[in-house]
Amino acid sequence: MSKAGSNPASVTVGPIEGSTKEYVEFDAGIGVPVRRVHLTNGEHLDLYDTSGPYTDPSADIDLESGLPPIRASWVADREGTQLDAARAGVITPEMRYCAVREGVSPELVREEVAAGRAVIPANHRHPELEPMIIGKAFAVKINANIGNSAVTSSIAEEVEKMVWATRWGADTIMDLSTGKNIHETREWILRNSPVPVGTVPIYQALEKVNGDPAALTWEIYRDTVIEQCEQGVDYMTVHAGVLLHYVPLTANRVTGIVSRGGSIMAAWCLAHHQESFLYTHFEELCEILHRYDVTFSLGDGLRPGSIADANDEAQFAELRTLGELTRIAKSHGVQVMIEGPGHVPMHKIVENVRLEEELCEEAPFYTLGPLATDIAPAYDHITSAIGAAMIAQAGTAMLCYVTPKEHLGLPNRDDVKTGVITYKIAAHAADLAKGHPRAQERDDALSRARFEFRWHDQFALSLDPDTAREFHDETLPAEPAKSAHFCSMCGPKFCSMRISADVRKYAAEHGLDSAEAIEAGMADKAAEFAESGSRVYLPIDSLSKAGDR
Amino acid sequence: MSKAGSNPASVTVGPIEGSTKEYVEFDAGIGVPVRRVHLTNGEHLDLYDTSGPYTDPSADIDLESGLPPIRASWVADREGTQLDAARAGVITPEMRYCAVREGVSPELVREEVAAGRAVIPANHRHPELEPMIIGKAFAVKINANIGNSAVTSSIAEEVEKMVWATRWGADTIMDLSTGKNIHETREWILRNSPVPVGTVPIYQALEKVNGDPAALTWEIYRDTVIEQCEQGVDYMTVHAGVLLHYVPLTANRVTGIVSRGGSIMAAWCLAHHQESFLYTHFEELCEILHRYDVTFSLGDGLRPGSIADANDEAQFAELRTLGELTRIAKSHGVQVMIEGPGHVPMHKIVENVRLEEELCEEAPFYTLGPLATDIAPAYDHITSAIGAAMIAQAGTAMLCYVTPKEHLGLPNRDDVKTGVITYKIAAHAADLAKGHPRAQERDDALSRARFEFRWHDQFALSLDPDTAREFHDETLPAEPAKSAHFCSMCGPKFCSMRISADVRKYAAEHGLDSAEAIEAGMADKAAEFAESGSRVYLPIDSLSKAGDR
Repeated sequence: MSKAGSNPASVTVGPIEGSTKEYVEFDAGIGVPVRRVHLTNGEHLDLYDTSGPYTDPSADIDLESGLPPIRASWVADREGTQLDAARAGVITPEMRYCAVREGVSPELVREEVAAGRAVIPANHRHPELEPMIIGKAFAVKINANIGNSAVTSSIAEEVEKMVWATRWGADTIMDLSTGKNIHETREWILRNSPVPVGTVPIYQALEKVNGDPAALTWEIYRDTVIEQCEQGVDYMTVHAGVLLHYVPLTANRVTGIVSRGGSIMAAWCLAHHQESFLYTHFEELCEILHRYDVTFSLGDGLRPGSIADANDEAQFAELRTLGELTRIAKSHGVQVMIEGPGHVPMHKIVENVRLEEELCEEAPFYTLGPLATDIAPAYDHITSAIGAAMIAQAGTAMLCYVTPKEHLGLPNRDDVKTGVITYKIAAHAADLAKGHPRAQERDDALSRARFEFRWHDQFALSLDPDTAREFHDETLPAEPAKSAHFCSMCGPKFCSMRISADVRKYAAEHGLDSAEAIEAGMADKAAEFAESGSRVYLPIDSLSKAGDR
Repeated sequence: MSKAGSNPASVTVGPIEGSTKEYVEFDAGIGVPVRRVHLTNGEHLDLYDTSGPYTDPSADIDLESGLPPIRASWVADREGTQLDAARAGVITPEMRYCAVREGVSPELVREEVAAGRAVIPANHRHPELEPMIIGKAFAVKINANIGNSAVTSSIAEEVEKMVWATRWGADTIMDLSTGKNIHETREWILRNSPVPVGTVPIYQALEKVNGDPAALTWEIYRDTVIEQCEQGVDYMTVHAGVLLHYVPLTANRVTGIVSRGGSIMAAWCLAHHQESFLYTHFEELCEILHRYDVTFSLGDGLRPGSIADANDEAQFAELRTLGELTRIAKSHGVQVMIEGPGHVPMHKIVENVRLEEELCEEAPFYTLGPLATDIAPAYDHITSAIGAAMIAQAGTAMLCYVTPKEHLGLPNRDDVKTGVITYKIAAHAADLAKGHPRAQERDDALSRARFEFRWHDQFALSLDPDTAREFHDETLPAEPAKSAHFCSMCGPKFCSMRISADVRKYAAEHGLDSAEAIEAGMADKAAEFAESGSRVYLPIDSLSKAGDR
């Protein structure tokens, strides 16, 4: 591995609070990782785990060596793609692995991949990868964008961002690095990434021509793609749907073309007055990606950058072309997903999914947000989480996160975490709404813990145990408060949850736990309950719960 | 005014960055306030303004004296309610005022109030109020809960929280104070609040019986309600739908009864084995509220506190009773809104609105969130903003905010702001989706500013100019950067928005701005464009935009 010149010092390691890293038995020497949350009542809950060996205290983390190549024997003499295998009726080890992670049958995984409704982005040259699947039949996934630049961050910072993002639940990461060290940065990330890594090859190609889009050529682009395939990139954004005659469709938009890749290709097309080389050479591109089993992420170069531009002619014209390219890619045995917007008001969101599925044969949809309004810079993780949850409920398979810095600057480590947690919320809300079999288990376990005042369990089951504990401890830091039957919202002597639990207990003990019993009018028992009041209803003196009414 | 013993020192005053306080002409001496955003291109945009005189530098703010009683002459000899007037075909000054704020006809306001589809919460005894309307035909409103306690905050802090919450857009506030100084705190808030103030009278009634629910009586409750009506409270949460025989329906819930008011009344019913005094004395309550024109907010004491409990029998049984009470209240000329959940997965949200409208004659729905998942304590402003946006899109008229501290502790000033901004996002996203005539103006203005690199305008038009500027300045603090045609995301030499603007300009200048022109094949012009490339396409060397692909 060639990574001379830079040595990322360290990354975040160790288990997430309240949980341990465990492995479900798989093949010899290989286990499927889970995050096991240990509850104080003796039960445990296993959660989907994206964090790789970094949360395993027994793992020997050496960034120089990279992660163990667990897939090496699977891909040693492999030809063809997951799509080829699935169509031939073959269940690959990656498919079995994904099936264990998702809690479904390997045959379902194979069927969805064969139909092109799901993809398993896994380059033969990225053997360190823990396989995962993206498709609407499975848990909704999220992607975190990272990427260095000469000015604002080092390679070390980017490797840590990758580890940090996957720690909190990023299912894939995209390396959007620019500047001088693109290749080296990507090498460090790939060799140490347990999740699929995506890129936008046009960024590196553009560096090779000193940033002049008009100087780009198919050959320069092709060689860049091959370089990245060789390194192990798992999926690539290709803006091949930005056609010459679509560019004028953006002329009357409020925000024109907001995709960097889209604007580069639009500039190239206009400069040469030729059709995009990505489009005219698309079959050659398919042949290259097929050799490595690199997945296409067909980019939405004309996505709307404002509410005003949502669902317009430019956007949907490109989407139709992406449908055409999907069929070509699949005919070459290449896996495909489709990128989506962007900025879309709520009432126009579902139409995006419906059209994508119709035009692109239900290839997995992979959307950026969408932002449900333009008016909240500094809060666009939230504006976009609203759109993301809704578009995922409608069938989007993977959500690209947005951080609080969107439109304003580059995300730092805290922003990355906020973006990831916010998108885990959106994805999980969609899993609940879609009735994903395992989703509600976690909500129920957390809510039971909440009702029973098991504070440690409530923290451990939450998406971000550290922050939940920190907020709780701001007012009640003492350890005994963690098992107390109250919190700072209503204070030690009064709590609706506590009264509710007492009411339930009393009703059950005295046969008042059915409407029939109540109707029968058990005044004597009610009197007895009133007498026991001093035990159940302690005086109130304290705090208001702001969220209560 | 009796507020001895405490003197709130100061509150936040002064205009919001980039805007001035203006007044649209109304009656003599009274104007309807707007926040006027002044753009650098000479245009301006007037925004709905909830902040009262505090953002007006010419206003004389004296917390001791309270705000000027602008409605004094309107209510001097008024009898009856806005509902009575509307039904009689009378357009009150409050209705005209609301019409100006909403940009609709006074007759529409009257019609909606007369039909019970909208309410104007405005106690005759709260003359300082700037009238506002809550109903699905109008902009979606948000409420911020505040409230002191003996332990965690002072009266001064609560008055500042009220000013702070309305500064950022809270349309109403609820004072959920408990402890010793309930009356005094409320007095300070009411006399200084430009927005309607809501309360939950059972909290104060409970203090009067030392916190023992079983010791509550109708008489104590009634006297408390009268005391609060006299003070000027504009709407009151009354949990009159928690009936004795509904209590057992909560026995098998994951989280029982989570409403404080609900649990108090359930405890009272069981202790006495009698029907709730709120229910049996409801008509007397109507007579009291009618005298002051206090609006009912019929509480959802049995709302679900977890995903598992959403839309269950207990919740909908209570909702049916609220429908019955709505008809009784309206027969007494009392305005009514209906409170709603809570915790609800996305696929069960719309059903809540449909049923509420069917059972409660489309009385304005006022919901807490709902939270779309239980698993993210410390991020419940976000889990609930997802649900809030969706339920508002479906017709909910007002959203009760949730702060990051929900379930964990009491919100501080920062949490209040985060909660308010988050809920402004949800409300505005819903306004866009519902096609509210004024909503998209702001998105379009901000997006145009973004596309044209008018950074000051982008900040000024955003929900939180201060934080947007702060985030931008983290990487590019210099003033020239505010008008530079780039940002830190893509750096000074490359930007998709910039290329897009250049492409548009070039295309327009050279007749390439239509698909027909492109199809006609203007190769000469394309060549010319390529030659101009050095002007348009500067070298790229810098930063990646993490949110871009």
